[in-house]
Amino acid sequence: MRRKEFDQSGDHAELEAFLQEMSFGFLAAVRPDGTPGITPLNFVYWKGKVYFHGSRAGEKIKSVKAGGQVSFCVAREYALIPSYFKDPELACPATAFFKSVLLRGTTSLVEDLEEKADALQAMMAKLQPEGGHEPIRADDERYRGNLKGVAVIRLTVEEISAKFKFGQNLTEESREDIAAKLERRGCPFDPETASLMRRYAPET
Amino acid sequence: MRRKEFDQSGDHAELEAFLQEMSFGFLAAVRPDGTPGITPLNFVYWKGKVYFHGSRAGEKIKSVKAGGQVSFCVAREYALIPSYFKDPELACPATAFFKSVLLRGTTSLVEDLEEKADALQAMMAKLQPEGGHEPIRADDERYRGNLKGVAVIRLTVEEISAKFKFGQNLTEESREDIAAKLERRGCPFDPETASLMRRYAPET
Repeated sequence: MRRKEFDQSGDHAELEAFLQEMSFGFLAAVRPDGTPGITPLNFVYWKGKVYFHGSRAGEKIKSVKAGGQVSFCVAREYALIPSYFKDPELACPATAFFKSVLLRGTTSLVEDLEEKADALQAMMAKLQPEGGHEPIRADDERYRGNLKGVAVIRLTVEEISAKFKFGQNLTEESREDIAAKLERRGCPFDPETASLMRRYAPET
Repeated sequence: MRRKEFDQSGDHAELEAFLQEMSFGFLAAVRPDGTPGITPLNFVYWKGKVYFHGSRAGEKIKSVKAGGQVSFCVAREYALIPSYFKDPELACPATAFFKSVLLRGTTSLVEDLEEKADALQAMMAKLQPEGGHEPIRADDERYRGNLKGVAVIRLTVEEISAKFKFGQNLTEESREDIAAKLERRGCPFDPETASLMRRYAPET
């Protein structure tokens, strides 16, 4: 169930910023035997498509060959919210605040060397933004052999949706109470989580 | 491809410790329309099975009803290893060190109230180890209504495998060089990653 108050699918800038911030996600595909497979993969979301790379002999390539339709999910948990933030007695209110983006579509192997080079360069720019390497270009002889050897997979996105859960269903009083408790707890991401609770609060 | 040098499947203690440390994973299932679905879920690995919980009306319950076979993956990225740690010129050596555990099996809805209560209590003990709530018990009247209302899913594990990638294929000299560079870089998990590189190094 995608509860309406957590749905961030319409805010494409937020969604792209999150995909740019996250280094890896999970690719689900139906395997040749009909059972679901899942693989964690580094990725780049580039020009509206998702790109992965891997060994030509590897499991993920087999999944791609088996059939085009896949789901790719990128998620980050910001905070576990303990039950006692809301209830001194029962465990029921325990929950987690998170961002999760789901992309559905079809995959194919990229054969064009220029698209391969450009996608891998976009992945480097994301995962190694400080640089420190020669740009990956199809016409650079030093990269040519490796470019031919590596498998690059393109996910053509048919559907993208996002769920950001930061207590949007709470009353304003309850939201402020939990945000303040997070700030007092002070785990590494608690101040950021409190600020996201306020940022995504529905306008009243 | 599950490269032999990264395979940690045989070390059950390491694998269970990792599942205990991680708060969530990704459940892949084949949906009623035959396409792959994927959902991030908090979980507990308890008595050799994986347990999830959720709303009876939700998407993950639909996946479970649709067909028993699922894959569940739990992964953590420890460090992105920049290309220039190994090569001053080309981007090719860029990689990531990570732990990833994959569980395959079948899911079913737990109907027995005692198993529900015990699994949810095990999940609370994992995700909220500091306590601060009454223990979840099937015979506690305060929990009875909620226990009946919540959906608990049990994954009966048929296959479990683990891939821990920390440069096990490197020469000892190269491993020490990269570990030292991680220690100098000093990102939050770099010292831990350097220590895991040494821990999982193959015996010579």
